[in-house]
Amino acid sequence: MALRLSTLFLRTLREDPVDAEVDSHKLLVRAGYIRRAAPGIYSWLPLGLTVLGKVERVVREEMNAIGGQEVHFPALLPREPYEATNRWTEYGENLFRLQDRKGSDYLLAPTHEEMFTLLVKDLYSSYKDLPVTLYQIQTKYRDEARPRAGLLRGREFVMKDSYSFSADDAGLDEAYLAHRGAYQRIFERLGLEMVIVRAQSGAMGGSRSEEFLYATPIGEDTFVRSEGGYAANVEAVTTVAPEPVDASATPAAHVEHTPDSPTIETLVDRSNELHPREEGEWTAADTLKNVLVAVSLPTGERRVVGVGVPGDRAVDLKRLEVSLGVALGAGGEVEVEQAQDSDLRSFPMLVKGYIGPGLSLDAPLLGEDSPTGIPYFVDPRVVEGSAWITGANLRDRHVFDLVMGRDFAADGVVEACEVREGDPAPDGSGPLSTARGIEMGHIFALGRKYAEALGLRVLDANGKLTTVTMGSYGVGVTRALAAVAEANHDEKGLIWPRHLTPADLHVVATGKGPEIMEGAEALVADLEAAGLEVLFDDRPKVSPGVKFGDAELLGVPTVLVVGRGFKDGTVELKDRRSGESREIPLDNAVAEAIAEVRAG
Amino acid sequence: MALRLSTLFLRTLREDPVDAEVDSHKLLVRAGYIRRAAPGIYSWLPLGLTVLGKVERVVREEMNAIGGQEVHFPALLPREPYEATNRWTEYGENLFRLQDRKGSDYLLAPTHEEMFTLLVKDLYSSYKDLPVTLYQIQTKYRDEARPRAGLLRGREFVMKDSYSFSADDAGLDEAYLAHRGAYQRIFERLGLEMVIVRAQSGAMGGSRSEEFLYATPIGEDTFVRSEGGYAANVEAVTTVAPEPVDASATPAAHVEHTPDSPTIETLVDRSNELHPREEGEWTAADTLKNVLVAVSLPTGERRVVGVGVPGDRAVDLKRLEVSLGVALGAGGEVEVEQAQDSDLRSFPMLVKGYIGPGLSLDAPLLGEDSPTGIPYFVDPRVVEGSAWITGANLRDRHVFDLVMGRDFAADGVVEACEVREGDPAPDGSGPLSTARGIEMGHIFALGRKYAEALGLRVLDANGKLTTVTMGSYGVGVTRALAAVAEANHDEKGLIWPRHLTPADLHVVATGKGPEIMEGAEALVADLEAAGLEVLFDDRPKVSPGVKFGDAELLGVPTVLVVGRGFKDGTVELKDRRSGESREIPLDNAVAEAIAEVRAG
Repeated sequence: MALRLSTLFLRTLREDPVDAEVDSHKLLVRAGYIRRAAPGIYSWLPLGLTVLGKVERVVREEMNAIGGQEVHFPALLPREPYEATNRWTEYGENLFRLQDRKGSDYLLAPTHEEMFTLLVKDLYSSYKDLPVTLYQIQTKYRDEARPRAGLLRGREFVMKDSYSFSADDAGLDEAYLAHRGAYQRIFERLGLEMVIVRAQSGAMGGSRSEEFLYATPIGEDTFVRSEGGYAANVEAVTTVAPEPVDASATPAAHVEHTPDSPTIETLVDRSNELHPREEGEWTAADTLKNVLVAVSLPTGERRVVGVGVPGDRAVDLKRLEVSLGVALGAGGEVEVEQAQDSDLRSFPMLVKGYIGPGLSLDAPLLGEDSPTGIPYFVDPRVVEGSAWITGANLRDRHVFDLVMGRDFAADGVVEACEVREGDPAPDGSGPLSTARGIEMGHIFALGRKYAEALGLRVLDANGKLTTVTMGSYGVGVTRALAAVAEANHDEKGLIWPRHLTPADLHVVATGKGPEIMEGAEALVADLEAAGLEVLFDDRPKVSPGVKFGDAELLGVPTVLVVGRGFKDGTVELKDRRSGESREIPLDNAVAEAIAEVRAG
Repeated sequence: MALRLSTLFLRTLREDPVDAEVDSHKLLVRAGYIRRAAPGIYSWLPLGLTVLGKVERVVREEMNAIGGQEVHFPALLPREPYEATNRWTEYGENLFRLQDRKGSDYLLAPTHEEMFTLLVKDLYSSYKDLPVTLYQIQTKYRDEARPRAGLLRGREFVMKDSYSFSADDAGLDEAYLAHRGAYQRIFERLGLEMVIVRAQSGAMGGSRSEEFLYATPIGEDTFVRSEGGYAANVEAVTTVAPEPVDASATPAAHVEHTPDSPTIETLVDRSNELHPREEGEWTAADTLKNVLVAVSLPTGERRVVGVGVPGDRAVDLKRLEVSLGVALGAGGEVEVEQAQDSDLRSFPMLVKGYIGPGLSLDAPLLGEDSPTGIPYFVDPRVVEGSAWITGANLRDRHVFDLVMGRDFAADGVVEACEVREGDPAPDGSGPLSTARGIEMGHIFALGRKYAEALGLRVLDANGKLTTVTMGSYGVGVTRALAAVAEANHDEKGLIWPRHLTPADLHVVATGKGPEIMEGAEALVADLEAAGLEVLFDDRPKVSPGVKFGDAELLGVPTVLVVGRGFKDGTVELKDRRSGESREIPLDNAVAEAIAEVRAG
């Protein structure tokens, strides 16, 4: 039955909602597809729900095609499984937590690794039961700090999440690649061009992970790519380290007077002024900046850590977080911030603005074995043999020609610096440029982290217990719908792709006299009899201008106008995207409309 | 594509789950349709999700048929709208409450009256926009004190809830009756016989309300019905009050010595012993029991209230709660319990065991205008002119021939007593009998309570603002599925009705030799080509006994066995419900299977 605008629960709005920043948000609200219920929480109105159903169908079909079996888990889950994997804590403020009437802890699940793991553990016991891939299309929760951009970053949203369980690494590889293919097909069918970027897995743990990003300036994720095809999350970019340097000719380290030089800029000035070098000037790249950060571990412990980076590079705390999480063997995520005065009170020997790793290998001031015991890591650019100007741990003094490996050592190498436009791609595919995107999908080769934490083991072919290896894969379904709107609109409104539109055809009846409405009714009946979904603007007292405006806002790709020409036996067929329209004989209208709709 | 048991995510269980009390719960878990995630919270496995989808489709089709428009609201909702209607408090411990990272209050919605009201207020402004009926099929939350009986009483569950908005009472009537009809059709299609009972609306407010109960001894709701067709919730039964009595011949009230008679039993004994009446013995029905209860009002206030009931009747606190809520003008629900010693400390003049309403109209001890100020209500059986033996407010003393209206008065009449088997139905349709049932659906003519609280007004035909009148209607979708299982099983397992079964046909391949499996594969392909949904037991190393047992447990109504007879060109067609089976020629198998499935 046709959706009739005379009765459809829909009111289009002229004004953008005040809290809307991005076009998809503005248009989906103005066109009556969604409505805000609370920050980051939306209600779906009839047209929105129809489109959402079509997006879900695409996702479901592609998941079924790779052998995924659909299940459905609760959103309200007990704390215990999430405690076992430490995610109850790791999720921090992003997790909605609550208690039931008995005081037991619950959460609103942001993802379901734990529950799927436990379910498979419950039912399966042998390698012969595997592999299995389970998925659900389900409502998820995440207490975003800044729920903006409408459906693009909601606090209650629909996700397809799936989980693969395999007996061995080859099985996981296969499941991972199957999902990768399914996701490529899903986004292709949604008409969304994706950049697949290497990603760190953050709180999820795991070894291999890629994100499907929809590249757009309004995206909240920054990524880098090279012309040669490399693409990665900024957190996942590995630095191309220079070759080690032969330091045999480098003079011994020497401490120099560098008054009033607590910053890199003043240090470079003072060095050039008082200690010029023979060829060229000193630059920030010749200096080694030692940054002290405070690391909050998942255990709750707070530790001071030193990081040495070239003076011309800024520290990227997010990259450092990922890298330090691994370097400190912290398993999950750590939080990193600039060390505060309170953190440094126990280290009076450190002179602010003049901190160095020590004056020689025998006198380190940073490093696990140093008097401070502060672990010391360096950026990959601080290679063996490289010589630096760096703090001498004395006010107004720096040490020159301090050589890595000869005069100072590090506890490890970490990715500490920002990635810059023009940096080389790690795979040698050329210089990187930065872009912004929205994460639409994510695939993780989780490995055995969850299976180990929750004891998911099966008997292998030799009758021995072996830990199952898992993958976890997500598509933001409501977010995908918003991205489709973002990718398909103009200043007048939405323009849906054919297979996602709320109706095949938008029939507008306009003009005086009962015969036009009667003619339109008859035509709509014929169109529906021919199998088309029709949105019918049958409102009796609405002006043509309002009707056409609404048709443009609502975005059904083909508009059929029964109006002026009707008395001469013609109707008008309009293409919403191009704006082009043509008169066609009424007698041909059904055939032409079908041709238009089928043309895609 | 056939669901193959060799790969389907399913393991049947031999043992009943330890926490399961009712058959549907035991069987749905054992047959691998659902799995417990937490108390009252379940995961849906592939077969369960398929059946749930079919139940939802029935509900959706019938809602669409009465013009309902489907929308979808969030489950996570802000406190404010529920505060405006007082339900934030009224729901008490049944409501899951939580806070977001900013400390704002949220709830997990048990129903959505507030949000639908606000949405219609947002979009609509004229009587011409009405009527409209909106519905959703959505996940709801209720923190049940005792989540037992599996899906029959869950804490996370799926409901269809709908809301009608009308400009006038006639419109509400129409929407109410449309829903009543839709619900009758829904439950008929689900094969569930319903008793439609008059109901009180409890926390929902509202004037007219009926419940659709599935009558079963395991139901948690008690209801009463007469042979003449009356059916009601116990809370909704109104007492048939006797005619007023002519008391002109009744002697004046007189206080008598009734030592050691603080209970009705001892009072009757003492009265017959010391103050026998001329004809027959005194019975408990001649005494008036004055019960003091403590009423907790929605405002938080706790008030002592006196209730006078015939001595042969027990007080029903739940009925009294409903009735006192109205009598005290408390708007929403009140909570009633026996008054505690602490409640009565301020009333030293009341002598426990000998409390009476007062010795004459001039000396009341109970009633708003009495020295105690305790409001006093009576059961409808305490009619004008009726004479009673009741407490004299003196130890070991009762007053006889105390006449209602002559010697004592009440602030009002309340339904205070239990309903008993044999009591007359209020509509004169005969004596009542009690039964138990499960609430499957509920329809409420809400009226203007929510619209008033949230300011939903539209312009009427005269251009004046008028408050919209609403109805609210619910069907427990997951509960309905459980009821279908409850109504359709035997000791061996489930037996699905044709249109709710997870597959049309369960094909079991059993027997040695590759030709049987090959033959079964070919047959399954033919059956699917003919449009049938097939569950195919293709497990290679599972015994016939296990396969047949699983087929009985899973409950697909028709089982087709490819086994012994295959070499002679026959297969076996079994009816799960009757257990009957017959050999049919392999060549006819597809045609016969289709005939069987279509026969319904």
